Amino acid sequence: MIRLAAGIDIGGTNSRFGIVDANGKILAHDSINTTDFPDAKKLAKTIAHKISDLLPNDSELAGVGIGAPNGNFFKGTIEFAPNLQWKGVVPLAKYFSSALHCKAILTNDAKAAALGEMLFGGAKGMKDFIFITLGTGLGSGIVVNGELVYGHDGFAGEVGHVIMIPGGRICGCGRKGCLEKYCSATGIVTTYREKLSVTRKKISDEVDSKYIYERAQQGEQAAIDSFNYTGEMLGLALANSVAYTRPEAIFLFGGLAQAGKLIFNPVRKNFEKNLLQIYKGKIKILPSKLKEDDAAILGAASLVWKEVK
Amino acid sequence: MIRLAAGIDIGGTNSRFGIVDANGKILAHDSINTTDFPDAKKLAKTIAHKISDLLPNDSELAGVGIGAPNGNFFKGTIEFAPNLQWKGVVPLAKYFSSALHCKAILTNDAKAAALGEMLFGGAKGMKDFIFITLGTGLGSGIVVNGELVYGHDGFAGEVGHVIMIPGGRICGCGRKGCLEKYCSATGIVTTYREKLSVTRKKISDEVDSKYIYERAQQGEQAAIDSFNYTGEMLGLALANSVAYTRPEAIFLFGGLAQAGKLIFNPVRKNFEKNLLQIYKGKIKILPSKLKEDDAAILGAASLVWKEVK
Repeated sequence: MIRLAAGIDIGGTNSRFGIVDANGKILAHDSINTTDFPDAKKLAKTIAHKISDLLPNDSELAGVGIGAPNGNFFKGTIEFAPNLQWKGVVPLAKYFSSALHCKAILTNDAKAAALGEMLFGGAKGMKDFIFITLGTGLGSGIVVNGELVYGHDGFAGEVGHVIMIPGGRICGCGRKGCLEKYCSATGIVTTYREKLSVTRKKISDEVDSKYIYERAQQGEQAAIDSFNYTGEMLGLALANSVAYTRPEAIFLFGGLAQAGKLIFNPVRKNFEKNLLQIYKGKIKILPSKLKEDDAAILGAASLVWKEVK
Repeated sequence: MIRLAAGIDIGGTNSRFGIVDANGKILAHDSINTTDFPDAKKLAKTIAHKISDLLPNDSELAGVGIGAPNGNFFKGTIEFAPNLQWKGVVPLAKYFSSALHCKAILTNDAKAAALGEMLFGGAKGMKDFIFITLGTGLGSGIVVNGELVYGHDGFAGEVGHVIMIPGGRICGCGRKGCLEKYCSATGIVTTYREKLSVTRKKISDEVDSKYIYERAQQGEQAAIDSFNYTGEMLGLALANSVAYTRPEAIFLFGGLAQAGKLIFNPVRKNFEKNLLQIYKGKIKILPSKLKEDDAAILGAASLVWKEVK
């Protein structure tokens, strides 16, 4: 009887799920449209059914891990997630544990991915690290002494909402100057538009971070400058982060992190420049070892393996 | 046979020490001039001797706790402390455990005081909080899930060296714009001098934070404005800090924190203003409940009681 974990990633458009073994191998996976389920309980039932079908013979479910936006680890709930159709507080972990008769653990997606990095990625054996996702926004998971930092109510680790520039760019959170408005796939687009607007060039509506990456690869100065500025801001923010928890390493994940040297060079340079003397030269900034496509399911399943192992 | 702890506070000028019971009561205390001891080993022997004398009959030493600038918890060493005469790495915990034949635990003074707050002060029963000392500099101790955050090498919790204003005031650490250059007893003096220089008033060399407090009490606008600016910067910095570890409360300790409403009002106002929505109205900013005179010895002794209890 082999023990397996299910990992579920709840997204605004799609929800993906899979069966993950204790070595972090995804044995099977599937997805459904989140938007087809105005009732979260029905979504849980449907996914639970599909998970049962995906489970191989002679296996048992050690538990279900769920990564979700605005996920609250302590309560197993999704709370007021702006990008999901379900309003208010949704007790999703309870729905899954009822449907699958096993333990269900829920947290936000970035924290889940941080656990994935610790159990199956580049942070194996590390006890103190910071995991940063550079997607539409900037998500983070902070690990201290081998444990995710949840804080008093489960909502620790919102590094994307550290105010970098008081009175700066307007953020979706209602404040101004948050880190994620500068260091994310959307942040770099804003930066690029600002840089090009000076040259009065016409800018296509379709510009995204991938486009900027390609332009930078072709040597376009505004695109390169956009990466440099993003790296400058992120380097400073990460240097400041070190003063809180003094990680062994910081991992960058997500589309923007895949730009390689274009982003890592300016980040590392500005990180070192802004580090307090006692930290200089001691902290690595590394690309995540999680595969972009697997990370969400693997991270969610890690919630189970972290407790079971 | 009553078990007691010794608490030792190593300072640049004086080193203070005392005998502390398991309820946080200081039963006896004494001090010596640190500068009389160019050899740290001799200082340890002398203090150890005096501690033995202070111990009441029918008592045994559960351990020795040491709070020291640049103290490394993992190694029990003081490392390159700019304000101490001992150069390089000093294995002070080893000296004390040899001299007193008991466990010796060492960390930096702000972290020790944070433990004091948790065991015997206002943070009793709290698992997540941040402790800030507003002295000559700004020290910090971060508690996550009931444990001090030490980080990978023992040097986590340097919130005073978060860069608030890139290119700002020159800091002793060799960088610019660190929080403690704005929010500390010396920081407010700089602010006050800046404010007065605009009015071209003559400023005495003897201005210190106590003087500014008195002037503010008398209604002097420049002094009040100095407290407001200090509070503005600290409020923003603390709001950003919440995004890392989501504490239940933040405690302010030290001379500047004793200015009461003059400092707490602007801090709280700007803290709430800059908090991410999900944190608003949920996190208390409180004065430390440790007595100014006792905190260092009590905090150091807490290192022992935290492990023994």
